[in-house]
This record gives sequence, structure tokens and C-alpha cells, in this order.
Amino acid sequence: MSEKPLVANKIFLIVIDGGSDRPVNGTTPLASAFKPNLDALAGSGINGIMDTVGVGVRPGSDVAHLALLGYDPYKYYTGRGPLEAAGVDIDLKRGDIAFRVDFATVENGVVKDRRAGRIQDTDDLARAIQEKVKVPGVDIIFRRSTGHRAALVLRGKGLSPDISDTDPHRAGLPIGECRATAKSPGATHTAAIVNSIEKQIMEVLNDQPLNAERKKKGLLPANAILLRGAGDVPELPDFHKKYGMRGAVVASVGLIVGIGKLCGMDYHAVGGLSEKLSGTTAAEKIQRSIDELSTHDFVLLNIKGADEAGHDGDFDRKTKFLTDMDEAFKDIGDLRDVLLIVTCDHSTPVLVGRHTADPVPILMHGIGVRIDKVGGFNELIAYEGGLHRIKGLDVMPISLDLLDKEKKFGA
Amino acid sequence: MSEKPLVANKIFLIVIDGGSDRPVNGTTPLASAFKPNLDALAGSGINGIMDTVGVGVRPGSDVAHLALLGYDPYKYYTGRGPLEAAGVDIDLKRGDIAFRVDFATVENGVVKDRRAGRIQDTDDLARAIQEKVKVPGVDIIFRRSTGHRAALVLRGKGLSPDISDTDPHRAGLPIGECRATAKSPGATHTAAIVNSIEKQIMEVLNDQPLNAERKKKGLLPANAILLRGAGDVPELPDFHKKYGMRGAVVASVGLIVGIGKLCGMDYHAVGGLSEKLSGTTAAEKIQRSIDELSTHDFVLLNIKGADEAGHDGDFDRKTKFLTDMDEAFKDIGDLRDVLLIVTCDHSTPVLVGRHTADPVPILMHGIGVRIDKVGGFNELIAYEGGLHRIKGLDVMPISLDLLDKEKKFGA
Repeated sequence: MSEKPLVANKIFLIVIDGGSDRPVNGTTPLASAFKPNLDALAGSGINGIMDTVGVGVRPGSDVAHLALLGYDPYKYYTGRGPLEAAGVDIDLKRGDIAFRVDFATVENGVVKDRRAGRIQDTDDLARAIQEKVKVPGVDIIFRRSTGHRAALVLRGKGLSPDISDTDPHRAGLPIGECRATAKSPGATHTAAIVNSIEKQIMEVLNDQPLNAERKKKGLLPANAILLRGAGDVPELPDFHKKYGMRGAVVASVGLIVGIGKLCGMDYHAVGGLSEKLSGTTAAEKIQRSIDELSTHDFVLLNIKGADEAGHDGDFDRKTKFLTDMDEAFKDIGDLRDVLLIVTCDHSTPVLVGRHTADPVPILMHGIGVRIDKVGGFNELIAYEGGLHRIKGLDVMPISLDLLDKEKKFGA
Repeated sequence: MSEKPLVANKIFLIVIDGGSDRPVNGTTPLASAFKPNLDALAGSGINGIMDTVGVGVRPGSDVAHLALLGYDPYKYYTGRGPLEAAGVDIDLKRGDIAFRVDFATVENGVVKDRRAGRIQDTDDLARAIQEKVKVPGVDIIFRRSTGHRAALVLRGKGLSPDISDTDPHRAGLPIGECRATAKSPGATHTAAIVNSIEKQIMEVLNDQPLNAERKKKGLLPANAILLRGAGDVPELPDFHKKYGMRGAVVASVGLIVGIGKLCGMDYHAVGGLSEKLSGTTAAEKIQRSIDELSTHDFVLLNIKGADEAGHDGDFDRKTKFLTDMDEAFKDIGDLRDVLLIVTCDHSTPVLVGRHTADPVPILMHGIGVRIDKVGGFNELIAYEGGLHRIKGLDVMPISLDLLDKEKKFGA
């Protein structure tokens, strides 16, 4: 008889972003990839399929990660803007309205390129916007993110997130005028502010030497910004208070970092947010996560790369990414006292090119886990596993229970 | 790189009414039937079991079909009457109260036969009732359906569906007096109207030459009607608006046609509503459905026959029906761009003789479906499939996702 319960005491949750797929000629990238290490973890763990948000619900990465962390997205999700803003280290306050921003190229009011020729170095542009754009009574926080991306936050009284995007969501359409989407003075007021900011930003960007240089080089200028995903700050209960576990997030994607930070998790950058991912960096991130596990009880690791290949419809690249990534999973099954969870946030099938609701595979590995007969990690066999078909919101309760941290209902 | 998502763009939903069962000596009609075509579809598709309405909930065909089409029966179902009435082409208006009607034989106020000797040709009787029965301030619409069945609709101000059936639901009991089941002036008013109509109809029917003839031939006269399932018109959102898909329903059962029509689906009769079904007519209906698929995005096909055999407790007849039906499933797996779904609306076990809540088997077949290891279509093996255990309301979201028509939650 053991005096002390024999259970894991830390959780390592690894999310292979968009790794799940639909079959092409009977197989999928996860099923085709050579990944002996990940398959061995499945073979010595329990497996299942999971609807991260709901059966038939297509999740964005944001709502899927919220659910995996135990935050019901139907209750807490307020839009992507604030999550992105938190991810570029803007310290959000209650009442702030945050937006996702893309630098874009606009000609005669029509969007020519929604990514301004995939511009990379936007430091000067962001600085100029931050310095020069003013609206009386409203604080404006503008910060660049990776590539053509940025975040904008409005801080002031009586602001509302009930406004339309200025992003027309497709090239060839006019840049949108921001309109109130609810009948409230706050929404009308906020829409007017956004329209003023859009106009000022176009003037500021037109004067930027970088854009003159880009034109000379035959590159598209970043002469406008497109706003979308307006939201107020979600009130996410603190992760540590909620679970009694100190959490850290490891990710190279601002969105995931932002979710972690808004939950009160710690974050250390891995190679900078603009880093392009590869098998090598998956290994680096796993190593960083293992380091974080020495000082934290919970680590969320997001591995990006498969998702992009899925969006691009590239089966071979997605398979290669997963194959390359596998080396990083060597030996992590030996981590002492760690409940290891490997899953995906959603499917991004190469046949579809966007997120779908197809359930994702999930494996759990560690002390106390009932080992099932599933011998590999992929969406074509995971359904045969001992977890059956669970939901994203089930992951934390199951994990806390395995760690002997779940409270009893009844007596 | 795929330009266009490679997904199915039409849905063919085939419901084998009451086809599911409980085991008798270890097997079921679906498991015993020789049905190589249907089994091959299961073998090259994904399978599961389904609670059409809820775990342990015994569904009528009506609520089960509503759920399969994505209409929550707990929200939308108002009774069987209006669905039957819509199925015999009565154009229902908001505020109408509709009833299921059976022609019956009554002696000294006691129901002798609830189906009037399974009378078939009720044209004259229905016409006489429509012409002669009058209630001031209320429009009465009476229309025959198949066999001994008919539908009655009351149209007027202040009517209520909160009234009792006049059908005692068993022979040997007195015909019921209609009573208000809620304390409302409308219910009392409507009950009084129904009792007046019942009385008038008995007088009209007593004078009908057809009944005199039947008595001469030793047949039971249709000298009364039994009313049940009173309901007001359900407000079903339009199927096309809801899903962006043009729907058609193919069925020889008024109830299912009525559901389709109330959802705004198109309908073409298959051999007349009174047609008796057999393997041959299943083939005809599948052919009709395939024709409808050329001009519609969604076709609901209901195949009746197994259900009756289940109600009659006839294992061999149910098995034979399913065997005979199978030929019709040949080649439908080759339909281009079609997501094929085969399921049942409920179990009608031969050991029980009525609908039960035992989950039904479901298979999905088409582009993008994850093929599982299940090799046949029956309720004893379907649980091993990749869908696991879903609900009727899950069918449309899963299908729309497979067709790339589901919207994303989050970003």
C-alpha cells in the first residue's frame, strides 16, 4: 500500500495546430508520416477522438485552445482581436477594444493585396502610427506582430465592440467603412473613431520612406490597414486560481501566447514571434517546454506548421512537417510525473484548405493512464481508443482527475 | 495545391423507417438480411450508432425525422396532426389546429374497430364530411389520406390545441369526449367545436351509401372518426434559408412528406400515397431520389416497410423486406459529389412491437469521410465505427462540415 497517491503531478499539453485531416486516397498526413516516437507514445497511452468545441462545429484556433484549457468558448470568447493584442504584449485593461490588423495595399480605395506583398519589417510603420495618430479622449495602442500583422487597441470611455470590420476579407473589394452593428451610442461612437483612425493611418503610411522604397523596388506599399475581429477583453478566470497549477505557454504564434497570457500563464518567447517553423524548432520548443515544466505545473505547447500546409492544400508538405517533427518527441514519454497529452486544435484538411469540424486524435500518456490497443497517433485509428469521443472541455477534468486534483462530487 | 475544396456538394439522406431492432437469438433483421450492397457502403464509409432524439428517448417517426433534419423536436414539435395534414396537401396557416383522423367503426358509442375494417376508398366519405359539416365562425378542412387515415384542420379565431383525443386508443372502449386539457377559454371553445364536429360526422357517415354497401358485404362500416394528435402549426425555419440547400423529400408516407413540406422542401408523389411498399418500390424511390438530386442539394428519402414488420413482430418479414430492398442500393455509392447517409429513424424491435429507444445504426459515405473498420450495416456492429455514438441533431452539422458549408466559430 502506498502512503502517497501514485499519480502524475504535472501536465504537458502539446497541440499540433491543424495536424488532423481527412483521408486522401485512404490515408492522411498523420497516418502517412514516419513518426515512430509519437506512435510509441500512442501505443503506451490511451487514445480517442475529440470534438474540440462541439460535434460538427468548425473551430478557430482561438476557441479550440480556450476549450482545451477548460474555458468554455461560448461563455468566454469575445473575438480574436484581444487575444492577438495580448499576444504582442499589450497589457489589456477591462473596457479596451482590440482588433486584429493587417497591413495592406489599397489603390483608389480598393484593396489590392490584403498582406501588402507579405511585408515583413513594419517597425517604422508601426512606430509612426503610434506617434502620429490621435483621437481626443481615446488612447490608441498600435503594435506590430509577425509579418504583415499588427494589433490595435482603443482605450477610453463608452467604447463598444459592436462594429463591423474594415477588412473586406477579399482583395478587389473596397476597404470597408466601419459601421455600428448594434443600436447603441457606444457602437456609433466607436465606429466613427475607427473611421477617423483608418483615414489618419493612410495619411501617415503614405508619407513613410519605407513605402517609397518599396515602390522603387517594385514591391507593394503598406499604405493602409485592415481591421477585423473587434472584441472587448475576455474575463478569463486566472488559470492558477482555477486549477491550483502554475501554467506556462510555449508558442511562436501571438494568438496562442495571448490566450495563455490572458489566462495568467507565463510566457517566454521561443526564437522570436517571426520565426518560421520547422522540425528543428519543434524540438527547440519541446526543450523549452521541458525547461518550463521544472518551474511550472502545466505547460501548453502549440506547434504550428501542419496547419499552414493544410491551408495550402499540400499533403506532402504537411506529411513532411509531421515526419520532421517526430524526432522532438523522442524520450518525452520518460518525463517523470508528467501527464503528457498530444492532440490537435482542429482539422485543416488538405482537400478543403481550411479548418473543419472533423474530430481530432488525442492521446494521453503517463502514470495511471489505461493503455488501450491503439498503436499509433492518427485520426484514422484514434477512434478505436479507450477515450472514445470526448470534447475539448473534457480534457482538463480528465487530466486533473488523473493528477488526483479533481474534487469529489457527492460524498 | 487545390484551387477548389474537394468535397461533396449534395446530401442524400436515406431513412430506413424502423429498420433497427433488438437481437433475437443473437441476431437482428438487419444483421440477418442478405444485403451486400448496403454492407459494401458501410465497409467503404464511416459508421456509428445514433440516438435520434436522446439516449433512452423513444421517438415517433415525426420527431426523429425533425431531429435528423436539424430541427430540435423539443423546440419545434407541436404534435403529429399538423404534419399529417401538411402531408395530404392541406395548406396550413398560422393558428390552424390540425388532427390525425382515423375512420372507425363504433357500436353503441363503443369503438369496435379503430380502422373501420381497414377501409381503403374513403373518397365519398371525405367529400360528404367536407360538404356537410359546419361550425359557425370556423373553417373546416377535411381530407382523406391513405387507407383509413385522414386529416382535419380547424381554422378560426381563438382556437387551442390543448384538448384531449377522441380516440380511446384501444378497441372496446367508448369513443372519447373531447375535453380541454388547459384552463383557457380557447381550449374549452375548441373542445366544444370538436364534439360538435364528431357528432355531425357520425350523422353524415350513417347516411352514406358506401356504409350501407359495406354492411351488406359483411364489412365494417366507417361510421365515426377518431381524432388525435391535435397541434397548431409548427414554425419550422425554411430549410433552404437555414442551410443554403434546396431540399426535396421522397416518401410514400404522408407524415414524412408533411415534415418536408413544412420545412419548405419540394415533393413529388411516388406512385401515390396509398402505394404499398416493397423492394421494388424502394428501388423506384431511390431512382426518384437520384432524379431529385440533379435539381436539389439535399434529398430526404424515407423507406417504409421494415417498421410495419417490426410492429407486427414478424422477424422473417422484416428480414425479407431488408433483403429485397438491398438491390436498390446497388451503385448509389458511385453518385458523384454526393454525401450518402443511411440510417433509421428509430428501432421497432419485433420482440416489442413498437418503437424503442435502442440506438440506430448510421453510415456516411462520400468524399472526405474517414473510412473505419466496420464492414456491414447493422445495429450489432455499428457501434465499433468511427462516428461512435451521435445524436440525430448532429447529422446536419457533421454533413454540412463535410460539404464545407459549415461556418467557423472563432478565427
